[in-house]
Amino acid sequence: MKKQRIAILGASGYTAGELAGILLRHPGAEIVAATSRKNESLTFADHHPRLRSRIDLACEPFHPELLASKQVDFVFSCLPHGASANAVKQVLSLGIRVVDLSADYRIRSPEDQLLWYGEGHHDPENLKHAIYGLPEMEASKIANAQLVANPGCYPQTVILSMAPLLHRDLIDAESIVADCKSGISGAGRSPKLGTHFPECNESVSAYQVGIHRHTPEMEQALNALSKRKSRVLFIPHLIPMDRGIFATVVAIPTTDVSPTDLLNHFKYYYSQKPFIRIVQSLPATKNTTNTNFIDIHPTVARGKIVVLACLDNLIRGACGVAVQNFNIMNGWCQKTGLEI
Amino acid sequence: MKKQRIAILGASGYTAGELAGILLRHPGAEIVAATSRKNESLTFADHHPRLRSRIDLACEPFHPELLASKQVDFVFSCLPHGASANAVKQVLSLGIRVVDLSADYRIRSPEDQLLWYGEGHHDPENLKHAIYGLPEMEASKIANAQLVANPGCYPQTVILSMAPLLHRDLIDAESIVADCKSGISGAGRSPKLGTHFPECNESVSAYQVGIHRHTPEMEQALNALSKRKSRVLFIPHLIPMDRGIFATVVAIPTTDVSPTDLLNHFKYYYSQKPFIRIVQSLPATKNTTNTNFIDIHPTVARGKIVVLACLDNLIRGACGVAVQNFNIMNGWCQKTGLEI
Amino acid sequence: MKKQRIAILGASGYTAGELAGILLRHPGAEIVAATSRKNESLTFADHHPRLRSRIDLACEPFHPELLASKQVDFVFSCLPHGASANAVKQVLSLGIRVVDLSADYRIRSPEDQLLWYGEGHHDPENLKHAIYGLPEMEASKIANAQLVANPGCYPQTVILSMAPLLHRDLIDAESIVADCKSGISGAGRSPKLGTHFPECNESVSAYQVGIHRHTPEMEQALNALSKRKSRVLFIPHLIPMDRGIFATVVAIPTTDVSPTDLLNHFKYYYSQKPFIRIVQSLPATKNTTNTNFIDIHPTVARGKIVVLACLDNLIRGACGVAVQNFNIMNGWCQKTGLEI
Amino acid sequence: MKKQRIAILGASGYTAGELAGILLRHPGAEIVAATSRKNESLTFADHHPRLRSRIDLACEPFHPELLASKQVDFVFSCLPHGASANAVKQVLSLGIRVVDLSADYRIRSPEDQLLWYGEGHHDPENLKHAIYGLPEMEASKIANAQLVANPGCYPQTVILSMAPLLHRDLIDAESIVADCKSGISGAGRSPKLGTHFPECNESVSAYQVGIHRHTPEMEQALNALSKRKSRVLFIPHLIPMDRGIFATVVAIPTTDVSPTDLLNHFKYYYSQKPFIRIVQSLPATKNTTNTNFIDIHPTVARGKIVVLACLDNLIRGACGVAVQNFNIMNGWCQKTGLEI
Repeated sequence: MKKQRIAILGASGYTAGELAGILLRHPGAEIVAATSRKNESLTFADHHPRLRSRIDLACEPFHPELLASKQVDFVFSCLPHGASANAVKQVLSLGIRVVDLSADYRIRSPEDQLLWYGEGHHDPENLKHAIYGLPEMEASKIANAQLVANPGCYPQTVILSMAPLLHRDLIDAESIVADCKSGISGAGRSPKLGTHFPECNESVSAYQVGIHRHTPEMEQALNALSKRKSRVLFIPHLIPMDRGIFATVVAIPTTDVSPTDLLNHFKYYYSQKPFIRIVQSLPATKNTTNTNFIDIHPTVARGKIVVLACLDNLIRGACGVAVQNFNIMNGWCQKTGLEI
Repeated sequence: MKKQRIAILGASGYTAGELAGILLRHPGAEIVAATSRKNESLTFADHHPRLRSRIDLACEPFHPELLASKQVDFVFSCLPHGASANAVKQVLSLGIRVVDLSADYRIRSPEDQLLWYGEGHHDPENLKHAIYGLPEMEASKIANAQLVANPGCYPQTVILSMAPLLHRDLIDAESIVADCKSGISGAGRSPKLGTHFPECNESVSAYQVGIHRHTPEMEQALNALSKRKSRVLFIPHLIPMDRGIFATVVAIPTTDVSPTDLLNHFKYYYSQKPFIRIVQSLPATKNTTNTNFIDIHPTVARGKIVVLACLDNLIRGACGVAVQNFNIMNGWCQKTGLEI
Repeated sequence: MKKQRIAILGASGYTAGELAGILLRHPGAEIVAATSRKNESLTFADHHPRLRSRIDLACEPFHPELLASKQVDFVFSCLPHGASANAVKQVLSLGIRVVDLSADYRIRSPEDQLLWYGEGHHDPENLKHAIYGLPEMEASKIANAQLVANPGCYPQTVILSMAPLLHRDLIDAESIVADCKSGISGAGRSPKLGTHFPECNESVSAYQVGIHRHTPEMEQALNALSKRKSRVLFIPHLIPMDRGIFATVVAIPTTDVSPTDLLNHFKYYYSQKPFIRIVQSLPATKNTTNTNFIDIHPTVARGKIVVLACLDNLIRGACGVAVQNFNIMNGWCQKTGLEI
Repeated sequence: MKKQRIAILGASGYTAGELAGILLRHPGAEIVAATSRKNESLTFADHHPRLRSRIDLACEPFHPELLASKQVDFVFSCLPHGASANAVKQVLSLGIRVVDLSADYRIRSPEDQLLWYGEGHHDPENLKHAIYGLPEMEASKIANAQLVANPGCYPQTVILSMAPLLHRDLIDAESIVADCKSGISGAGRSPKLGTHFPECNESVSAYQVGIHRHTPEMEQALNALSKRKSRVLFIPHLIPMDRGIFATVVAIPTTDVSPTDLLNHFKYYYSQKPFIRIVQSLPATKNTTNTNFIDIHPTVARGKIVVLACLDNLIRGACGVAVQNFNIMNGWCQKTGLEI
């Protein structure tokens, strides 16, 4: 396993810190550069004190030359929407492979891009070749990609919950309701009133009901699985905990199916996927915290199909799946460095 | 306002403590007795140290003679399912009025009782005359009742979210999906592994998917509002917070309706109800904590109707609505003692 | 009881919201004005959605004429340090009585003011007549004051824990170590990285070790109780909870004293103080949440005196004690409106 | 590195689960047996669902023959106090090496054992040869031990905070006050009212003030470092979070020392210890969560020496340091398997 020389763009956020924690244990990774737009005097470990004494790296402003001078082989972009495409474009032109953790290269349709993001794409040229990085669905394409658009945290739960059902036409693709609950790290690291501790602690709230930008990402992936167009009503909620997503996805069945058949179908469908655990008991986010696993429990209740899915939004929802993609892109075992 | 002499049955649980806190401020209430089955040497304030120096009352074993000797006018039963009916039966025979906070007198149909509770009713005679105590729907019957079955915490959110819609036939009554999130006090005060702090903190989980006993309570009340039978898929979740319920209720509309029309319809429908707040912004449980309010926000999203509702499960979900019923039963303003 | 017409200055913070909640239930209070420096289009209930449908009041910019035009009798200033003195000065010149919840009028010594706050006083003239509003120590002076400097949340726990000991010279006044733990609402409502949910949740940290501005406030009050000068090493900590302060105060005894004698001495010392509860079991902040009580437990352990004290930082630590002072200033029972 | 065949005794608790998580990544460990006294039908992963699909191991009742038949080389005992000595005695007689995570072999003095634990020792013979497993102090003895008594979570913070000071006689050894704050996993996994979520969430409390059994463990280790006998007033507190210990240790200096000198002295004293981080900024438990690090910050404030120390009570406080001891006992790098 030849170590890849890695640069992390956007070093100050939560995903960058978690990503570094994983890569520091990864036998095929060496972090050689980190970029940050703010507080340039802060080191990587200053931003992420948990990593003190494990990483000794300055944060520098992003510049293509930096990557060249450090002989970077591979880039993870943890930059926010918009800023990421601007940087990734330059990285790609150097021939460096990229996993982009932002939403910038996920949506393929210009209409959807305009409708849900309110603007055209920043880098339509590279968008054409970007691969949507959900390893359970696109592993072979990911293997050869130069640019992988890392999937969103919410979409992974919904797509992987519905895929086995759509694959066999077991549900009405227009009936999907995804009620998702996320820990607050999902909102990022920038302080805002809504994520100020005494505002969101001891409270549950919904936000962006039916208008969240992860909706077209879910539908795009589901549409690839079925002749019928999917429609997802996605309702995200904020939960007073650090991390974790719990998705409760309900759909109307097209045919009678028993809970046991459903469970077996899911087990079979995902039998070769090392990070999908089809569980018989009701899942809890805690069982996936700090892991790259997604726990999925399908069942039937009161005439509807209910699929419950859990993951850690920072690991499996972001940097864990990014490393999984990195492994695939390098031809390594998907689990390398992810047995956490 | 003639003070009612009050006994609280089942003094050791959370609802008893919260109830006493409200009644101690209530101009029409005097707590004269409390019963408890365990740790009889403990006083009421020992069970609820928050009330120390506010209440000086022993806990005694339940016996009808106790109520007679203390000249009790009114009983709140905070006993658990089953134990409550056994005690309430005896209280009623003394001619004392009762609000029963357990589920014992809520379900009217013997079939539903058997189906969902797995046993016949403990007190079929009194069940006939029990009134379901949801003040926004049954105020006039509550006023004259001897026995009020206090409504469940979850059912209130779902019933009041759907009532204005069913009233005008705006939704398919069989399409209701209620995804509810509850703080952990909803599970009661008896320690169990599932409510042990490190098990449920920093985690979300679902339980009793489609089989929770509050389901027939919801459907019974909704059926009274529509010619069509309602079917509710109710999925409760446990959230790492002390108190609060957030209900996300989705239904398929029978006709086109705009969010604004919906909001206005809800406002009009509940215009005379002092504890229902139809809110224009997305609700959060925090805004209802320690109050008797239910905040409701109806909207339309991706072709479905979504109603979000919040309440404090211990106050509005239990002892606050119990005091509201107590007020109605005594001919007082519903808000008496509840401006908290 | 003649209702006082009240203005709240600084309407957007947590204390203003809690204060309004108490005053809305208070038989001697009518809130007639509220001022805010930001988002002037927001109403009081917009800032504090918990109070929707209970208060209908605009927030206006502060101006002395506003108070005159609204015939304000009494002002509570919830403005921050510095801004408060500037407004209070103008309020006092109108002859209106004030409880100032900021730290502006607490420190009497110009040297301490300079040393701990790094600047001279903004209003030395009114400082001369300001009364330190700790009701258990200064009730008679508070009764006649025009300006009461409401005490700090931390100082109340430490002063009231040590007062009975210094009063009888039971401890070395220079040996006091106050290890205090506070919920995060104590840091105010302005979002900062340190109070961003995922930063402070699931974590404990210390801050301003030995240099917190509440130190001179503690020492000033303790010095008034003893011939010897007190020295307090005050170490505040941030705890992942909304509200509550737990103070663990340790001092070296000057003489042998038994835990029982200590408990009895504390009980006697505070026997006439309705909001001090001397408790025999170990206290917990939860038992004081949403109350105006301070629970105090004195004991002896391994040769040292340990006093544990708890309060709710927003109620007893701020607006509850403010209303207690308001009651004293109006000649009413201290408990009026505070039986929460 | 020859893999050690490992048995974990007491499989159902939190430390067993965390320990297995670490050992599954450890290149020198293979878990071949697990014992549990309860619910024998449950597998190891049933007790710890987070590990599903990573470990496939039944839990069996403890019996020496089980260890023999599985050719166990090394035992970690996660059994509770008392039960652990009974099992460890039998394990040792088979010649197997043991790290005992209970308190059973920590206290060397029969008087202290009797005084603090209220009973004589269960296994005085093996106690003689047990080594106290604090790697930063006893590495060479640990290397050759058959039985290592893994140190307590609280004691590690206090001992390591005071050791550099006592080593140079910088403090009065009788003046130590250790105010410690622990997450609730420290109370174990058995449900109790005090650790029921709604009881301890949103609350801080103290327990066992001056009488906690970790006190003699602290003093025994500190006495080994100084000619003067140490006296520690240890006050533990319960904090509403899953894991983490924050220790605030105060002592009276014997001489003048500057904060900078103190910091440098600590840095030098621990310069060869890979898991001690002497930090310049104030520490927070969050920075040590899920790591084997102890963050220590010494300073001087108001004439006293204050040392702040943080660790993760389940990792560094229990199974992380157990693996560190396991590494030392096998002659491996202390960090093996602990870069988490």
